[in-house]
Amino acid sequence: MSIDDAALSRLKQVVGARGVVEGADRDRYEHDFRRQYAGSTPLVLRPASTEEVSRVLAICHERRIGVVPHGGNTSYCGGATPDESGSQVVLSLERMNRVRAVDPLNDAITVEAGCILADVQAAAERAGRLFPLSLGSEGSCQIGGNLSTNAGGTAVLRYGMMRDLVLGLEVVLADGRVLDALRGLRKDNRGYDLKQLFIGAEGTLGVITAATLELFAPAASRATALCAVPVLGAAVDLLSHVRTAAGEWLTTFELMPRIAVQLATRHIPGVRDPFANAHPWYVLIELTASRATADTGEALESALQKAQERAWLADAVIATSETQRESMWKLRETIPEAQRHEGASLKHDVSVPIAVLVDFVAQAQAWVQDHVPEGVVVSYGHLGDGNLHFNVNQRSGTQAFQLQAVEQKARRAIHDLVREFGGSFSAEHGIGRAKVQELERYKAGVELDLMRTLKRSLDPHGILNPGKVLR
Amino acid sequence: MSIDDAALSRLKQVVGARGVVEGADRDRYEHDFRRQYAGSTPLVLRPASTEEVSRVLAICHERRIGVVPHGGNTSYCGGATPDESGSQVVLSLERMNRVRAVDPLNDAITVEAGCILADVQAAAERAGRLFPLSLGSEGSCQIGGNLSTNAGGTAVLRYGMMRDLVLGLEVVLADGRVLDALRGLRKDNRGYDLKQLFIGAEGTLGVITAATLELFAPAASRATALCAVPVLGAAVDLLSHVRTAAGEWLTTFELMPRIAVQLATRHIPGVRDPFANAHPWYVLIELTASRATADTGEALESALQKAQERAWLADAVIATSETQRESMWKLRETIPEAQRHEGASLKHDVSVPIAVLVDFVAQAQAWVQDHVPEGVVVSYGHLGDGNLHFNVNQRSGTQAFQLQAVEQKARRAIHDLVREFGGSFSAEHGIGRAKVQELERYKAGVELDLMRTLKRSLDPHGILNPGKVLR
Repeated sequence: MSIDDAALSRLKQVVGARGVVEGADRDRYEHDFRRQYAGSTPLVLRPASTEEVSRVLAICHERRIGVVPHGGNTSYCGGATPDESGSQVVLSLERMNRVRAVDPLNDAITVEAGCILADVQAAAERAGRLFPLSLGSEGSCQIGGNLSTNAGGTAVLRYGMMRDLVLGLEVVLADGRVLDALRGLRKDNRGYDLKQLFIGAEGTLGVITAATLELFAPAASRATALCAVPVLGAAVDLLSHVRTAAGEWLTTFELMPRIAVQLATRHIPGVRDPFANAHPWYVLIELTASRATADTGEALESALQKAQERAWLADAVIATSETQRESMWKLRETIPEAQRHEGASLKHDVSVPIAVLVDFVAQAQAWVQDHVPEGVVVSYGHLGDGNLHFNVNQRSGTQAFQLQAVEQKARRAIHDLVREFGGSFSAEHGIGRAKVQELERYKAGVELDLMRTLKRSLDPHGILNPGKVLR
Repeated sequence: MSIDDAALSRLKQVVGARGVVEGADRDRYEHDFRRQYAGSTPLVLRPASTEEVSRVLAICHERRIGVVPHGGNTSYCGGATPDESGSQVVLSLERMNRVRAVDPLNDAITVEAGCILADVQAAAERAGRLFPLSLGSEGSCQIGGNLSTNAGGTAVLRYGMMRDLVLGLEVVLADGRVLDALRGLRKDNRGYDLKQLFIGAEGTLGVITAATLELFAPAASRATALCAVPVLGAAVDLLSHVRTAAGEWLTTFELMPRIAVQLATRHIPGVRDPFANAHPWYVLIELTASRATADTGEALESALQKAQERAWLADAVIATSETQRESMWKLRETIPEAQRHEGASLKHDVSVPIAVLVDFVAQAQAWVQDHVPEGVVVSYGHLGDGNLHFNVNQRSGTQAFQLQAVEQKARRAIHDLVREFGGSFSAEHGIGRAKVQELERYKAGVELDLMRTLKRSLDPHGILNPGKVLR
């Protein structure tokens, strides 16, 4: 089913010559950045305003044309890639990248969906404030995508996920109507909080065009440590201990296994083994405070000292310079890239209650050892939030296709285990097209029914990101 | 239109003898605690389990019987009061008051909707943790009501509103199906975040029966000050200054006008004028930190010293004992009660962006002076959130009916002004039956349409809290 020429030409007229991508230039919109998902589109539209988005959707609604919203294209789940049918247009928000307003007194910033996350961070910084969302792809991911996937990252422990940072939204509905809820109010209980519907909905209920986001006092005092931990259980104990000792200052608590350090030192120039000896697990801890006089360094040091007495720590180093801090962060942040150098990997973005995390990892690891000789577990991530990227990497000497052959089986086994432990098979990466079947399997019943009810109500013709999240 | 006896007897069977309130005992369910709203019901049901709530709703759905969910009955908007028709049953959650689980490692507590807020605070405290929601009626309001109205209170600045404290919900839908989303996960991006629909929906989209809530480290260090401020603008400057100076420790920033202090000293035993001289405005500031060694006192003192140099402060006292702190809080918390002693009052629970708050108050006050000679403005509240209770009290020597005669006119003028300033006419008290027309006036268009779409989808027969929020 292709889109007829008359409709295509109406759509092109709305966005004008600069807003149209055709021919070979469509390529980068037709697959994700990892080239794991591919599709085909006759037309990429790049509207320059909310008004143009509204007119595009009104036409697509009328003509029943599928629309795939597209941001920085950094989805791990194929959330922004059209399907193979050629019947969906791609709607890129990249030209809508203005910072509309910064209000330091109200600690709020209003930005368009196409703004790159790093640019929003920079705009906040210029105003003497902090926009705290921080994640690996911040140099290319866009705010619209961050909102639509309820992005997480490395400062969730202190500031929450993207949902927690939203004061107001502007959304174009399936039929082209514009929901203008762009407010900077801290308190507003006038009926249903409609913006919540669109955050984390991956563009299936509406297209977010702008947002008013919350700003914070920047960190004026900061302490960062890299810790070596003898067993995973000690990392959990360490978390509980540091959470009590550092309280509201605890901003980052990231876990890395030995193998992740090995991969990073092997593949990433400038990354070095942080300690003289090898250790089974590593933890990156960062405390931040907005008062320059806050003794975050002293707090971290005394917390780690006590931890060492309790044998939760094998070794630790507190950064004494920004360079040293950056090298600690580089170790953590280059793990995904280092993994890519190593070959294929099966990704599982899971969360479980922290109390059962050790048991979950032990059982999942045992299953991989027993059933996937081609793979080796690289399990790292945001321990502070109970969120692990439980990945299985191609073992050296094997071929990618061997690992890919067991992908379905491994995913099923690991996600079944996640369910047993009361966890989530998608902690921060969303559903996209990758996990539609998982959602059907693990959320069957009232939850899935209610999601379908919402989808039908808000997008009766099913034109918004068809096939994503729900079939 | 009354409910037929067969339906009533089926409903009574579901909840059993202990779950039924009939006759004169219905009285306290038929009006709010202030006796501002009154209605009539043939039957009050007090189910003891989620299963019973489910069966009650299934019957009401089938027989098209209106259901008014009822918690601690502390609504300022008549949100839990049945209408006058006698065709609605009241569904009190008061018997569902178990703390189902406390998980200090995961900082989570699971409680039933009928738990009293103070009991949840106490259960958290027994586990060495803090549940931070705090408001005047905490001794009688229930968690289900707090959730359904997205309650605010005096610690929003630091911990957010009720919505921000929810990890998971259990909800019975209009047709009796149970949505079990009672999870303690910090990160969970498996499709739409359905729980958001029910928070702040005032029981019109489903009946919340239980919730998993977030806990925090308790305050181990605390500093409290009462400040005298020469003009309102100085209070706003002081807020901005203290926010920067105290950062993440700033927990409370409450505003009181001179007249509120006068009313409290006049009517509340034990409340004394806090300073030798009278001042136009007062601010209650509290910093809290979870580290016992945190120098909150030093931080507050140095912040106030600098503020005094800038003439933002006329006078200030920092509490040196828990008794002194309690008397500062008593002054703030007894304002509503003191107002009641003074006679009738017209209440406006508004928020505006902090940058325009001074101008808003000036214009609103001028309007009242010009148009309501019977009234005197008592404007106090959560300045840190831009949220003021802009109330107009009966002037001594006038009669309540004189003030009530201008209620509609005053409300219209003040809320129109709120709209002009980009604010909200319901910051934390919700809509209930009191503000249905306001919602129609100020949210007309796409927002109201979308709210109606949701209502129709989730409650097609309109049985859930009929007439509240939406007509």
